[in-house]
Amino acid sequence: MSDLDRLSLNIATTKAWTLREAVEGAVRAGVPAVGLWRDRVQEAGLETAARLVARAGLRVSSLCRGGFLTTADDDGIAAALDDNRAAIVEAATVGTSELVVVVGGLPAASAPGSAARPYPTGSLRDQAGDASTPGPVAADPARDVVAARQRVADRIADLVPFATAHGVRIALEPLHPMFAADRAVVSTLGQALDLAAPFPPEAVGVVVDTYHVWWDPDLQHQIARAGSEHRIASYQVCDWNLPLAADPLLSRGYMGDGYVDFASIGGWITSAGYTGDVEVEIFNQHVWDTPGDDVLTTVEDRYRRYVLPSLGRPAG
Amino acid sequence: MSDLDRLSLNIATTKAWTLREAVEGAVRAGVPAVGLWRDRVQEAGLETAARLVARAGLRVSSLCRGGFLTTADDDGIAAALDDNRAAIVEAATVGTSELVVVVGGLPAASAPGSAARPYPTGSLRDQAGDASTPGPVAADPARDVVAARQRVADRIADLVPFATAHGVRIALEPLHPMFAADRAVVSTLGQALDLAAPFPPEAVGVVVDTYHVWWDPDLQHQIARAGSEHRIASYQVCDWNLPLAADPLLSRGYMGDGYVDFASIGGWITSAGYTGDVEVEIFNQHVWDTPGDDVLTTVEDRYRRYVLPSLGRPAG
Repeated sequence: MSDLDRLSLNIATTKAWTLREAVEGAVRAGVPAVGLWRDRVQEAGLETAARLVARAGLRVSSLCRGGFLTTADDDGIAAALDDNRAAIVEAATVGTSELVVVVGGLPAASAPGSAARPYPTGSLRDQAGDASTPGPVAADPARDVVAARQRVADRIADLVPFATAHGVRIALEPLHPMFAADRAVVSTLGQALDLAAPFPPEAVGVVVDTYHVWWDPDLQHQIARAGSEHRIASYQVCDWNLPLAADPLLSRGYMGDGYVDFASIGGWITSAGYTGDVEVEIFNQHVWDTPGDDVLTTVEDRYRRYVLPSLGRPAG
Repeated sequence: MSDLDRLSLNIATTKAWTLREAVEGAVRAGVPAVGLWRDRVQEAGLETAARLVARAGLRVSSLCRGGFLTTADDDGIAAALDDNRAAIVEAATVGTSELVVVVGGLPAASAPGSAARPYPTGSLRDQAGDASTPGPVAADPARDVVAARQRVADRIADLVPFATAHGVRIALEPLHPMFAADRAVVSTLGQALDLAAPFPPEAVGVVVDTYHVWWDPDLQHQIARAGSEHRIASYQVCDWNLPLAADPLLSRGYMGDGYVDFASIGGWITSAGYTGDVEVEIFNQHVWDTPGDDVLTTVEDRYRRYVLPSLGRPAG
């Protein structure tokens, strides 16, 4: 048993590589698994991608990603369901049971160019009548995070039968709360588990990504819960670097460069009974500007030093 | 009863103003209360500051801020306690019962210049022994967020008798999780309430700042809990703007410019029985570059449009 047995290269980490290059790079580095992204799979062609990975003898730990389920209008809902059904088929075809799902943000942040769109003038006042005689105020639909979360629950219910029929699990990924407006109204592991609760664990699971959840005061408890509910679909690792990158999506770092306590979190994951792949997923311009083979050398070194020690046996 | 009766100007919003200028500006604008910062108070002189505000007839809704309680070494602990006792005296002197407390971040992020400090090479491996025979791995002390939170609890217990004797409440402010490493290991309202639980509500309260908590899936429940426990010490409002400013501390916006659903959150606050001041606290370079009187004009307009309608009567 090699110490890299559970290491998976999420191919977003070596962004400059095509799918073929990433597969060959992983094989050269002795990495036994890859996490794939749909854009690279589609670029290679779905059947070709599946063959490439299979012939290389690599496991596919996950496919990224489905989701963006918060749209409120009928056409948007239909389009989102179509896209997610396609993602489910792609996951099954490339040979993974785990489709990573990022649920989407608020309507106010979803339209192109709307990132800094202010409220329409007077919108709440119009709802509330004269401000000097206040009454019950309706939530602003474009900013109503509670309603957006309900739509996520509804869309998951829509997708579960199709996913189950294809042997694919919807792996809900809570994203860091700084992405709640524009990317994911699911911000904590507990919330993801609550959304998963109505469905069997083989239909809906959760992703534990250290970048997104390390700060959560309830993390140890929710990881234990995820384990006991058999819902841990993926353990993704990278560090939380400061200062935040101008695009905070790219502030992920090599394990050891930031503030994540991998010893503790890895111990909790191990105690929860997770024995699956550990995906290294780093979005970081400096990493992307580094030759892929060098990135893999650093990834393996950091994995051995910061992640592997906590995976061997349950902590505490 | 004026529609600005509950509006408080947190003077960080008009950063270019001295304390005297902020007091005079608030009076000119018909704002009946101010939230003060220690640097401006110390600059004016504590007794002078207290007189200035009292003669102007303004309420002081809070003093910002104490905290930074996560230090592990004895000298650091002693210094933190000294500083917080001074802040308690300052709060009592300027006439507010509410001392806003930001609890501090991880040791790894607290040393000057350490923001991007990597792990010491091999630190975890050294703890874990040979990586090929993994065993229980101790948490990394510099990154152990669980231990840092326990130190916060310990320091609050140290400070409560002094605060109570001075009639000052320790108002714990959960900060957005993107500040968990470097500013506050308390990230949710629920966590702040758990920390407050051992103490009477007049000794330890919580701050609800929309910028920091708007994304929380448990927010409605925790605001209701905070109300029923009589712990809401301050309701601070500003918006969550995107894209994030280069310094994310400065990404706060005028209400209405971003993604916060003030109608919902204000309704929850009202339902929780909160009838106190509503502090507008905006850190934003554009706002700071705008003349203070113009800032107050915008603040009042946005307050009337987005905040006030939800404050009139309990929602739902």
